[in-house]
Amino acid sequence: MDRRSFNRRLVAGGAVAATGVTSLSVASAAPAPMAAAAGPERAPAGGKVHHLTMVAERLGTGKIGYGFEKGKATVPGPLIDIVEGDTVHIEFTNLTDVDASLHVHGVDYDIANDGTRMNKSHVPPGGKRTYTWRTHKPGKRADGTYREGSAGYWHYHDHVVGTDHGTGGIRQGLYGGLVVRREGDILPDKQFTIVFNDMQINNLPGAQSPNFEATVGDRVEVIMITHGEFYHTFHIHGHRWADNRTGLLGGAGDTSRIIDNKITGPADSFGLQIIAGEGVGAGAWMYHCHVQSHSDNGMAGLFLIAKPDGTIPGYEPHHPTAAKKGATDTKGADAQGGHTGH
Amino acid sequence: MDRRSFNRRLVAGGAVAATGVTSLSVASAAPAPMAAAAGPERAPAGGKVHHLTMVAERLGTGKIGYGFEKGKATVPGPLIDIVEGDTVHIEFTNLTDVDASLHVHGVDYDIANDGTRMNKSHVPPGGKRTYTWRTHKPGKRADGTYREGSAGYWHYHDHVVGTDHGTGGIRQGLYGGLVVRREGDILPDKQFTIVFNDMQINNLPGAQSPNFEATVGDRVEVIMITHGEFYHTFHIHGHRWADNRTGLLGGAGDTSRIIDNKITGPADSFGLQIIAGEGVGAGAWMYHCHVQSHSDNGMAGLFLIAKPDGTIPGYEPHHPTAAKKGATDTKGADAQGGHTGH
Amino acid sequence: MDRRSFNRRLVAGGAVAATGVTSLSVASAAPAPMAAAAGPERAPAGGKVHHLTMVAERLGTGKIGYGFEKGKATVPGPLIDIVEGDTVHIEFTNLTDVDASLHVHGVDYDIANDGTRMNKSHVPPGGKRTYTWRTHKPGKRADGTYREGSAGYWHYHDHVVGTDHGTGGIRQGLYGGLVVRREGDILPDKQFTIVFNDMQINNLPGAQSPNFEATVGDRVEVIMITHGEFYHTFHIHGHRWADNRTGLLGGAGDTSRIIDNKITGPADSFGLQIIAGEGVGAGAWMYHCHVQSHSDNGMAGLFLIAKPDGTIPGYEPHHPTAAKKGATDTKGADAQGGHTGH
Repeated sequence: MDRRSFNRRLVAGGAVAATGVTSLSVASAAPAPMAAAAGPERAPAGGKVHHLTMVAERLGTGKIGYGFEKGKATVPGPLIDIVEGDTVHIEFTNLTDVDASLHVHGVDYDIANDGTRMNKSHVPPGGKRTYTWRTHKPGKRADGTYREGSAGYWHYHDHVVGTDHGTGGIRQGLYGGLVVRREGDILPDKQFTIVFNDMQINNLPGAQSPNFEATVGDRVEVIMITHGEFYHTFHIHGHRWADNRTGLLGGAGDTSRIIDNKITGPADSFGLQIIAGEGVGAGAWMYHCHVQSHSDNGMAGLFLIAKPDGTIPGYEPHHPTAAKKGATDTKGADAQGGHTGH
Repeated sequence: MDRRSFNRRLVAGGAVAATGVTSLSVASAAPAPMAAAAGPERAPAGGKVHHLTMVAERLGTGKIGYGFEKGKATVPGPLIDIVEGDTVHIEFTNLTDVDASLHVHGVDYDIANDGTRMNKSHVPPGGKRTYTWRTHKPGKRADGTYREGSAGYWHYHDHVVGTDHGTGGIRQGLYGGLVVRREGDILPDKQFTIVFNDMQINNLPGAQSPNFEATVGDRVEVIMITHGEFYHTFHIHGHRWADNRTGLLGGAGDTSRIIDNKITGPADSFGLQIIAGEGVGAGAWMYHCHVQSHSDNGMAGLFLIAKPDGTIPGYEPHHPTAAKKGATDTKGADAQGGHTGH
Repeated sequence: MDRRSFNRRLVAGGAVAATGVTSLSVASAAPAPMAAAAGPERAPAGGKVHHLTMVAERLGTGKIGYGFEKGKATVPGPLIDIVEGDTVHIEFTNLTDVDASLHVHGVDYDIANDGTRMNKSHVPPGGKRTYTWRTHKPGKRADGTYREGSAGYWHYHDHVVGTDHGTGGIRQGLYGGLVVRREGDILPDKQFTIVFNDMQINNLPGAQSPNFEATVGDRVEVIMITHGEFYHTFHIHGHRWADNRTGLLGGAGDTSRIIDNKITGPADSFGLQIIAGEGVGAGAWMYHCHVQSHSDNGMAGLFLIAKPDGTIPGYEPHHPTAAKKGATDTKGADAQGGHTGH
């Protein structure tokens, strides 16, 4: 699927079929030779209504995950990617043996969709309910003041497993990313969700911290979320981003700091877009928590940025069994399921 | 008192009488039907000189607090709310049995007003001295460079009790908020000071973490301050703000991140304004530290946002004895005392 | 050396001779009477190629430092100060008895210059290699999108001593500051590098935390870097800065928060410029980590801001043996060596 059909998919606004696949090798993505000349794809106007299904289920590994359908849960849960003005109805089925819920950051929902026990918006084992999330564009209020829009790199998580703050659910993997774009925002070629959860990345043991694959020139989007108990600093080698809403400068007048390292605490989230290898070329580029004991204990992975011919200079795989969790190739809609919304 | 007389009070610039009352039920606030049509009130031009009195005194509960007069100390201390260009003279009396002081963040003061032992600007038990804080508007320096103004969500605290950094004073409650506005900044209807101090909110045990009350449509301002030893993440359910000077976007070109969760460490402070229930309606909306063990141990409270008829959908009070500390209704000048400056 | 010759030096672009001196008393700086009328000096256009030498060597005190030449290593290492478009070639010699490297944040380098063991870009004991860092100006990509420039307050550090993340090297002092300016950025009169590394400042015991000297009116630049294991909050008394790229507001439309306290974690870095004593006058102004136990245990020093006659009101030196590490007077090129690049 090239970028033009990707764009048509966006404009058509169909929700992507939920297959539960949340990672996809870059090798399966078709090249997009026309896109460079035409400029990157942009988010279309919002206003669509999405109907999704979501389950929470135990995974065989002591984890609990969210998925778009039974048997397909992942950690992180599937990325939901929408546009300001969209509405999402999520029919949520709790396939675990404890109360569970869906609590979301950033978007609009009435108190009955809060996902907390206090507001009775959780779901018992085997139960089902629909959560509705709404979003809005920026605009002016009746009193003339400016109202911000919903756009942001947000996330969702359980709020009731273990404790009334969902500490047990989050610890075991009940979380996922939510991107709300503004009309006109630049769309990425690839998306990776990276969650620093306690002392692990995406709930993987240090020796299996996820690597992410791209080709030089890909516009890679990272949705970075923190959970749990500890603060972290997120660092990428050889690449950097703007510390603002989009991770991209708005232009010469944007005074946002350009950074490659950012302190972050539980439930913080931010996004960034980098052009893989821009100005630095292909390579096995580390990303890691820069708290020294955290990286020493395994909170480190790689951005494996290949040349167009697929080679990565100087790279000898260190842990070839490492999972590549959280990767979503937005070009490959047919195979993906860890992404929805446009 | 409606917003129009509130505005006149601002323009008149009279310091509000210090009664020591820092919380006020929203039920006593008169509606402001004309304000919506006219747009929100705005901060007037600064340049006023305020003469305040302040005491530090022990409270019966093992705390020490600041107050505008003897017997009226609170934790947090009274909110001081001024405009760029204003000067504040604070006649400070130390009613405790140890050295104490007043150290302020953000504003201008000469070294004799530093509030540190090193600079001999503390006050012995029973002693008295006047601290002077000045503020300035943004402008150009003689060399043509741009000078920032004093506007910000700042705070004051003791710097000598316990240690030369005021660790004991801060731990026991010697802190308060200071807002410096720019002329034209939007004024709130209600203000709440929330201080994450070690593992408590406003020095209250977890079971008594403060709730704050508002009505849908109120422009609520939160002055968020962190103190002590630990980092926290401040989160509000169903509401969000801009991560910039005012907590409000300056317009469509403002690239600031919109957030609902923010990492913060000791002596950090920020402010935000939310329209209570905007786009989400009435409800018992949690705010809490999102570090999981912190919220699990009680660092969580509620924004009780009522419908105009006073009801809160789905809300059953969980801890009816919870104090509502730190609330200041800026509409109700007669009853308030935890606020001054305009 | 007055500011006009300083400017000529910048325009000439000659790399400053590396003498290993990284601190300089303000007393040796000549006054700059003409500068105020003419406005501050500005960064020239970039595009220069700098050839530097750097060593890593053990210091007698259990530390390891970087220096521009053998026998001149310091902690922090010498400040490197360049302009967008510049290239830096650093011939690095490892004079220690363990593998060491140079890893840099923020700027462009290909994977062979990563400074990691994984990418075989470290240097064995006694070995030598050249690291190349490139920078770029902001501009437009071929696809029409805006590309950020390299400007920022960055830093470099070892990535292999002790662990594959350089934990031992960083702990012992293998780090330094890197400033990349945009053409037209305001140049400071004095620069201080302050590194919160674990529980020390610039690897000095608490009783010797560094003081920094300036005269009222000096434009002082602080390069603030955090390393190690802990989060901190950086606070200065009586002065504040903008939380953006330069630490200075871009103008009236810049909505960046003005702060005097900032949470920061390992490998975070930021810069700020303050006019010493502006609006507050001379004095012994504390700077410190505001995490209470950290400041109580010595993470605190002084900005000793003197009147033009050299006196500091109310100041009685508390620890006269305190080192003044990290200071670089950019006016005094003849004596300095902890600075290079323009």
